[in-house]
Order: sequence, then C-alpha cells, then structure tokens
Amino acid sequence: MNRAPRSPLAPARFPDLPGIAGVRLASAAAGVRYRDRADLMAAEIAPGSTVAGVFTRSATRAAPVIDCETKLAALARFGPAEGGFLFLVNSGNANAFTGAAGVAAVRAICQTAGAAFGIDPGHVLTASTGVIGEPLPASRITDALGTLRAGLSESGAQQAAAAIMTTDTFAKGAAAEVAIDGQPVRIMGIAKGSGMIAPDMATMLAFVFTDAAIAAPALQTMLRTATRDSFNAITVDGDTSTSDTVLLAATGQAAAPRIDSARSRHGRAFAAALTGVMRDLAHQVVKDGEGATKFAEIAVTGASSAAAARKVAFAIANSPLVKTALAGEDPNWGRIVMAVGKSGARADRDRLTIRFGDVLVAEKGQVAETYREADAAAYMKRQELQIAVDLGLGRGAATVWTCDLTTRYVDINADYRS
Amino acid sequence: MNRAPRSPLAPARFPDLPGIAGVRLASAAAGVRYRDRADLMAAEIAPGSTVAGVFTRSATRAAPVIDCETKLAALARFGPAEGGFLFLVNSGNANAFTGAAGVAAVRAICQTAGAAFGIDPGHVLTASTGVIGEPLPASRITDALGTLRAGLSESGAQQAAAAIMTTDTFAKGAAAEVAIDGQPVRIMGIAKGSGMIAPDMATMLAFVFTDAAIAAPALQTMLRTATRDSFNAITVDGDTSTSDTVLLAATGQAAAPRIDSARSRHGRAFAAALTGVMRDLAHQVVKDGEGATKFAEIAVTGASSAAAARKVAFAIANSPLVKTALAGEDPNWGRIVMAVGKSGARADRDRLTIRFGDVLVAEKGQVAETYREADAAAYMKRQELQIAVDLGLGRGAATVWTCDLTTRYVDINADYRS
Repeated sequence: MNRAPRSPLAPARFPDLPGIAGVRLASAAAGVRYRDRADLMAAEIAPGSTVAGVFTRSATRAAPVIDCETKLAALARFGPAEGGFLFLVNSGNANAFTGAAGVAAVRAICQTAGAAFGIDPGHVLTASTGVIGEPLPASRITDALGTLRAGLSESGAQQAAAAIMTTDTFAKGAAAEVAIDGQPVRIMGIAKGSGMIAPDMATMLAFVFTDAAIAAPALQTMLRTATRDSFNAITVDGDTSTSDTVLLAATGQAAAPRIDSARSRHGRAFAAALTGVMRDLAHQVVKDGEGATKFAEIAVTGASSAAAARKVAFAIANSPLVKTALAGEDPNWGRIVMAVGKSGARADRDRLTIRFGDVLVAEKGQVAETYREADAAAYMKRQELQIAVDLGLGRGAATVWTCDLTTRYVDINADYRS
Repeated sequence: MNRAPRSPLAPARFPDLPGIAGVRLASAAAGVRYRDRADLMAAEIAPGSTVAGVFTRSATRAAPVIDCETKLAALARFGPAEGGFLFLVNSGNANAFTGAAGVAAVRAICQTAGAAFGIDPGHVLTASTGVIGEPLPASRITDALGTLRAGLSESGAQQAAAAIMTTDTFAKGAAAEVAIDGQPVRIMGIAKGSGMIAPDMATMLAFVFTDAAIAAPALQTMLRTATRDSFNAITVDGDTSTSDTVLLAATGQAAAPRIDSARSRHGRAFAAALTGVMRDLAHQVVKDGEGATKFAEIAVTGASSAAAARKVAFAIANSPLVKTALAGEDPNWGRIVMAVGKSGARADRDRLTIRFGDVLVAEKGQVAETYREADAAAYMKRQELQIAVDLGLGRGAATVWTCDLTTRYVDINADYRS
C-alpha cells in the first residue's frame, strides 16, 4: 500500500515525541497482508496504570472492538487494573465481518500475547485495520510476538505510528507537556486514518499515553470529552468505520499528584492538554484525507444549542457541494446557505451571517454590502481555510474540521481492489 | 448552461405525453439569465380544479417556496379554489437568499401574472431555479407574460420541460392512464433536477397534472405519500435545495367519478398511478445526476421498522465510498456493511444478508460460501444495478434510488462559476 504520494497538507516532518515513563513501544513486520513493511505495533503499559477507550458506534463493529468494549466494561465494574496492559495493533486486515472465526482470532491473539508479555489476557486490548471480510491470519501475528517483545523501547513512537498506517500518506504523532501542581506531566499520542483505498475502511485509530496518575473513571470521562472535541469533530466523507478505536493509558509514573476527578482544577488542566494532543492528531487525519488539498475549519456560532451548532457544522463539513467548491477555490457561499438549511437544526435565513476568514460574505439573509467576490476568491486560494457561520439565534457553538472533495478522492476509491 | 453532454443514462427520447383537459402549457425565452433558450414556463389550470403541493423542508427556503406554502395553507383553510390556477416557473435565478427584495419580486410577479391571465394572484404559484443570492429580474419575467399567454397549448409539455431545465442534460416527462370506475383518467408530469453546476442549487422541481376530479385534502394526502415514495426516495449527493417544489393540479374534466378520499378504492387506484408517474420522473432525475454513469436501486428489507429500513437505505445510497465503488464497478460489499453500521438504525451484523442483483454476497455476517467475486464483478458492469440488504430483524422495508459518484461530479461542481 502507501502507493499515494504524501499529502500536500502533511506536516514537514514527524514531531519529536517524548517517551512516557511506564510505556514501551515496538513494531514488527508480521506480513499480515503487506510485504516489506512493519504492520504490527505493541504498547506495553506498566503495572499500576489505568486505561480508557472510546469506539465506533457502528452497529457492525469489528470483533476487536467488541472485545475491547467487553474488557473495559469488566474493568470498570470490577475495579482498576493491577497487572499492566498491552495494546496490540495490526494493519492489513480489519478482522471485521468475519463472524465466529473473527472472535476466535481475537481470543487466540490475546491469549498468546498475554502469555508472551506476562500480561493478563483480559488486559490485552487489540485493534485491527485493513481489508474487511477476510479471515485474520492470527498466527502471523502471534509468530511475530517474540520479535515485537525484543524490540520494546520508550522511544519507538515514530515506528509505531508507521506500523499502523494503511493508506495514510504520512505517520501521525503529537505531544504536550502540562504542569499539574507544578509538576510536569507528559502526553504523547499516535494515530492513523482516514485513508480508505478499497478494500480498506475509513478506520481511525489513536493511542495516547501519559505519565500522569489518573483514576480510571476520570480518565474515561476526559477521553470521552476530548474525543467529542477532536476525533468526533472531524469528517472526511461522513463514512464511519467498523473499527474506530481510541485507547488512552495513564501510567502514574510522573511526580504530579493523582487526578481523581475530571472536574477538579488539575483534571481540567490535564483534560485541556489531552484535548490539544488529540485535536492535533485529528487535524492530521483530516489533512491526510484521501485526495485532500484544503483543510477547512467550520465554526458555527449563534445556534439555539451546542447540539444544533454541531448539526449545522457537520451539514456544511459533509456537503459534497461545499467540499467540491473548496476544491475549486470557489467562494460559493450559496452552498453554505443550502447546507445550513438542510441540516435539520433551527435556522432563520434572515439572521444568517457568513464569513470566509476575515471576509464578511453575507449578513441578515443577503449578500453583505461590502462583499467583493475578488476578496473571497483570493482567500479561498489558501491551503487552510475558515468558514464561520453565525445563526443569530442563541449561544450554541461548535467547530468541526473537514477537507475538500477532489477528483483524486474518487479515483482512489473507485479504483478496483485487485 | 447545458454545457454537459447528455447523460449516458438518459432515455432514448422524450416520451409522448398526452394533453390534460383543463391544462394549457406555454414556454418563453424571458432572458432571466440564459440567452437563446426558453427559461419561463406557465401552466394555466382551468376553474374548478384543485391543487396540492409539497416543498423542501430546508430552513433557508427561497421566497417562492414560502409564497406557495402560504397560499396553499390559505386555500386549505378557506376552502377549495373557484377561479383556476397558474403555475409560473423560471429557470436561471432561484430568487433564494434575496431577502425582502425577493419577497417583493414574487409579489410583483404574481400580481402582474394574475392580471395578465385573469387569475386571482392568490392562485398564482411560482417556482424559481438557478443562481442564488442574486436579485430576480422580475420585469424580464413580467415582460414575457404576453408571449407566454399567446403560446398556451394543451400539447406544450416537452417545451415546458425544457424551459425549466438548468444543468439538466435532458428534459424529463412521464405519463400514465388509469381507469376509475371504468372511466379513463390521465396523469402527466414534467420535472427538472438535479443538475448543480455552480452556482445553481440541487433544485428539484416537478409539476404534475390530471383530469381526475379529486377533493383538495385527498389530493394533498396522495401527493405527500407519492412524494415520499418517489422524489423523497432518491438521492444524488444528499444535498437539499432551498427551492424543491412539487405541485399537482386536478382539473376534474375527465368523466370519472370524483375522488373524495385517498383511502377509497378509487383513491388507492389513482394514488398508485400517480406514484408510478412521479417515480418515473424521480428516476429520470437520478439518471441525470451530475456525472452519473450508474443507476442503483437500494432495497432494504427485514428492518425493525419502515423508518429504520429507510435510514439504512439512505445511509447506503448517500455513502461516498459506496458511490465511488459503483463508479469503479467494484463489488465492494464491505462498504455496504460499513454503511449499514453507521446508519444509526438497529442492525445485527450476524443476521445481515447482502445481494448484488441475483448474486448472494454475504449472509449471517460472513461472505456467502457460494460467493465468487467474478460473478459480482460481472454484475457490477451493468448500467442499472440493484443492491438488496436484508437485516433479518423484522418486516420494515424501504427502497431508494441513487447514482454513482464519479470524477466528473467533482469536475462539474469544483468548476469555478465565472
């Protein structure tokens, strides 16, 4: 895979990511589907850590997702983990729509990996991305566990990020440091998505690690909120994978005091930094959207509620007509009006204000008197754009991010698989 | 406009449409925006007729839509019409997002047209399609009313269908005859959509006429149901126009008995024929979808309810990944699984059955044992396709129609307007 050239929106280079005390990463070439590249990633998380996860809401979730959900639910019910965790992730095969055989494959991998790493199989969390409907060759993964274990290192983030890529054109990583009670705490994450060359799915995977000490329920709350404002606030084509997975581990090996509540002062400080890292990763996913040449922020304000604002923002961000206009560098604000109208959220045409960056396009349901199309057309030539819509109704606000829809997206996805 | 070549899915020729007693049609070149082509259409409907309408649910509806809604609401409240009706439709300018000036333009046109045709302005129903956000040059329309009136004829359907085109690549018409109590009743309709070359919107307009005698409330009920199963069961790109309008007039000039209820035997017979005509028109709209090379029926059965089936069917029909696979003639059933999963409707992966035409692809959550990809790949080469999904949960069923997503769609819509 990786046939595509690097996205024009890709960052210049992979960021320098710090190691996280209590987390060791490794990658290996298991040959699940791809040849001559790493396709397996492990993150070994030290005893005493807590974990949290959020997953696709698809009704046709893949076997590894259901396994993770079941294990996290059991952990939540029977108390925090004692014996460390293992995240084990393969690319090349999503183990989705594989029936009972898929469930058995997950079980076999978790058993064998647990034994190999000395970790309770109930603490082994897997994710798979790649072709769907084909049996996962579990033995290729278990055969590579020795190599994987031998390669564990605190500094393997870039290789790990590369190993989980499918049709991504660049590896994705982000990090932040935040002071909790004056003590530095580190957050580091990697992600993949949302390349979708047939027959891969639009799978978005992210794995985030911190050396902060955080109680599991607070960690889950913060992950859910941060996901809402990052990975669940982006769209490439509105399609949802059967495998989307975000896992977060907190090792507690930093000197900072333990965080027991997401709403405490320390909790809020950590959550803000976590959201920043996850948003950075989410933006990278959009910038690697298939065929993308433009990155656009859609900021909606003045809605009757936050939910209404989000509905309008996604209606704009997912509209093929808006997205093709971005590709064409066309300040076609009529399509914004259309998308607001179709969103299903409350809107009053005669209160609508639309801005492209600093260019006031329309207000009170009409083109602005100061509007000159040449200004808007010049703005649309930028690689990163902001479209701001104020509904003039209330205080609800939401921001989402999207990319343009190009002929290359169609070429990539209409390309026959074989 | 009309720069695009005729759609490869277009019918061989415009159908022979019968005249409808009590309906006279005319078209004229008013020069609203286009040069050297008709862009104005009138349908004069004889006294004693009843009318019904359904409109876009967009929150940013255009001025003519709001005017029609207001007038039909008043008619429903104060009793059936006495003095005939006029449908007056222009292409080239949608009179949408035009504020108070847009409202004034509709009022002026209705007043002048009412006077010119001797029809109560409250019975003049207008529709506009084309560029949005630009003032409608109302005087160009009113200046053409004399020509229009002079051209009225029972047999002007093809010219009328051509006059309302924007980026359509062929004119759309359909007709049927049905016996009510042994007496023949005719139904004839024209439509336009859903060409969307910037800056036009995805406007879908349809005007349907019958010589049956039908009480206004029954007519409205039948139109609403028929729209659900025709124009509201199609999608090109999921985008919704600010101007979508379907108007239906019943002149009562056939010899058949009057229909007072949609649920009576005669009502059901008429409604079935009406749905057939409107579905034919709706299919033509899909076949003229921008860049379309494939027409696909998505038939969902076994859902927990009809609403759930519809949700699943539209999730498939609107999925860019499914639509690009159709374009690539790729039997990528994994994308069907994905779309079912993301629909939000109840689904059980392990009960899912998927068929491409006669080819059983998957059942019980796995690839079917008999499945050979060569069979499915051969099927996908057809121009008209059926994708059938059975959820195995209940008796809910729904069928919708869509087209493929091609690079040409993007080219057309990313093309800068000027």
